[in-house]
Amino acid sequence: MKLVTFSRNGFTRTGVFLPAENKIVDLNYAYQALLQSQGKYRFEKIAEAYVPANMTEFLQGGCESLSLAKEAVAFALENHKNHNTFKHEIIHMLEDVKIEAPVPSPGKMICVGHNYRDHILEMGRELPSHPVIFAKFANTVIGPQHDIPFYPISEQLDYEAEFAFVIGRKARNISQDQALDYVAGYTIANDVTYRDIQRRTLQWLQGKTVEGSAPMGPWLVTTDELTDPSGLEMVLTVNGEERQRANTDNLVFSVQYLVEFLSRLMTLEPGDIILTGTPGGVGVARDPQLFLKDGDVVKIEIDKVGVLENKVSFVKENEDG
Amino acid sequence: MKLVTFSRNGFTRTGVFLPAENKIVDLNYAYQALLQSQGKYRFEKIAEAYVPANMTEFLQGGCESLSLAKEAVAFALENHKNHNTFKHEIIHMLEDVKIEAPVPSPGKMICVGHNYRDHILEMGRELPSHPVIFAKFANTVIGPQHDIPFYPISEQLDYEAEFAFVIGRKARNISQDQALDYVAGYTIANDVTYRDIQRRTLQWLQGKTVEGSAPMGPWLVTTDELTDPSGLEMVLTVNGEERQRANTDNLVFSVQYLVEFLSRLMTLEPGDIILTGTPGGVGVARDPQLFLKDGDVVKIEIDKVGVLENKVSFVKENEDG
Repeated sequence: MKLVTFSRNGFTRTGVFLPAENKIVDLNYAYQALLQSQGKYRFEKIAEAYVPANMTEFLQGGCESLSLAKEAVAFALENHKNHNTFKHEIIHMLEDVKIEAPVPSPGKMICVGHNYRDHILEMGRELPSHPVIFAKFANTVIGPQHDIPFYPISEQLDYEAEFAFVIGRKARNISQDQALDYVAGYTIANDVTYRDIQRRTLQWLQGKTVEGSAPMGPWLVTTDELTDPSGLEMVLTVNGEERQRANTDNLVFSVQYLVEFLSRLMTLEPGDIILTGTPGGVGVARDPQLFLKDGDVVKIEIDKVGVLENKVSFVKENEDG
Repeated sequence: MKLVTFSRNGFTRTGVFLPAENKIVDLNYAYQALLQSQGKYRFEKIAEAYVPANMTEFLQGGCESLSLAKEAVAFALENHKNHNTFKHEIIHMLEDVKIEAPVPSPGKMICVGHNYRDHILEMGRELPSHPVIFAKFANTVIGPQHDIPFYPISEQLDYEAEFAFVIGRKARNISQDQALDYVAGYTIANDVTYRDIQRRTLQWLQGKTVEGSAPMGPWLVTTDELTDPSGLEMVLTVNGEERQRANTDNLVFSVQYLVEFLSRLMTLEPGDIILTGTPGGVGVARDPQLFLKDGDVVKIEIDKVGVLENKVSFVKENEDG
């Protein structure tokens, strides 16, 4: 399934995107309708418990919630002609909603640095013995239909295409062979970086966690649909010009390795997002250097996941994006 | 006021510690009782809205909630002899509750490195032009009555005494002269660090965000009680032996500076915690190096704030702390 967070009429909800129909099914309302059709008086409370409208809470429900969500989608599609009998609209055309970041408020955002083999070797570096990890905070998250705000605190705004995975189950001391059972799914992230701010001190955080610097989406492809995170081609373009290209086969530390590595340090929780690193071709490493400008369109495409496209939009001083 | 998060009978609640009486007032229940005494039918809902039992939600209420909380405490103290008429117990003896970290789930934990002037100069370094900032995640937070778990992933467990402040109001592009209006209060933190894990890659996060590595508390001293964060003496001892001593006058980047600096990068939210840095004397910098062992007692005392004392407790492999 392609899980989405979408907003409509001021409400933010969890849904499933159906590419063939170009439609979004509202999971919580669809499950309410299914329960109502079964004569359940407590349909709202049961749906709130098992198929909540908030993505992180939905992910906390694990396989059980995912399985009920599938039943709800099947019910919605079978009964969409009777939709006037439902309390809420349960199916929307894609263009009638706004797609938000799939997990709008992740508890943790863990980013991996130096993780593409080709790029590390071409730079003459040795392969790292341990993943380099750093943080972004949730204030960075924006959706696929938001502009990337460019604050006038730097002139070096740079892109970083990243394949990202989202945790679906509490994970602590999980071995690589079990790891994928703890992953809810995959998405695309742009680890937007204010390069000079990143580099003015030893620790990168300040250039990484600027407001709005993590566009993500458009959806979370669940692990039953995308069973193997290897072999996925990733391409980033700026205004249509290719800047980064890589394949997840080239990751030094795989999704499975990262789940083991990270869960030995800390408890991972549903909704936590791990950005697996960016390949060569970032603006700061080009000759001459080439940073993002107001109006630039940054597009990242990953096989079997989708396309994330955002426009850069300059923000005037003291005005918020 | 000394705001605390405490637990009792399986519930976690927000309270105020009254040192003279050695008592804890349950703020939400005290405010419910006050509202009931005024004949308000909707007392539970009103109290949930204005004086919620969760600290982050309480801080979101800002000055309005703090002021109502003070009225509730005054009411509780005046009426404690009639406590049988209240629906809930609103006053507890300190020893009858467990004190937890004041903010158990901070949205952001932002740590400052290299921030004590004396120590930087004595190491022969230059004063930094910008704060070095790095992250811990909320999985690190433990309270003053928890042991510090020592996981067998390293032999270099180290302490770092830190003066910490908590954000009380949404802060974006705030200047230094306004900064303290955005601070809810102050507490003590131990930025427990797995030193070899911190240093095995360029980015410190992995040695900083290990499970349970941020003891905090015992309370949040609000800015109406502690109006000036400068001039506070801080001492850390291990098993009674002094290891770190410093004064917040010696901070290169003050609380006010940090609010301005950080809020120019990102939106700070109520409940976000900033750890202002540690002075000289950490175990790794001693000659010979001296790391923490199972059973060690680490005590941090800060003037006008309080004492945070935690025992180190070794955790066997695959057993969680």
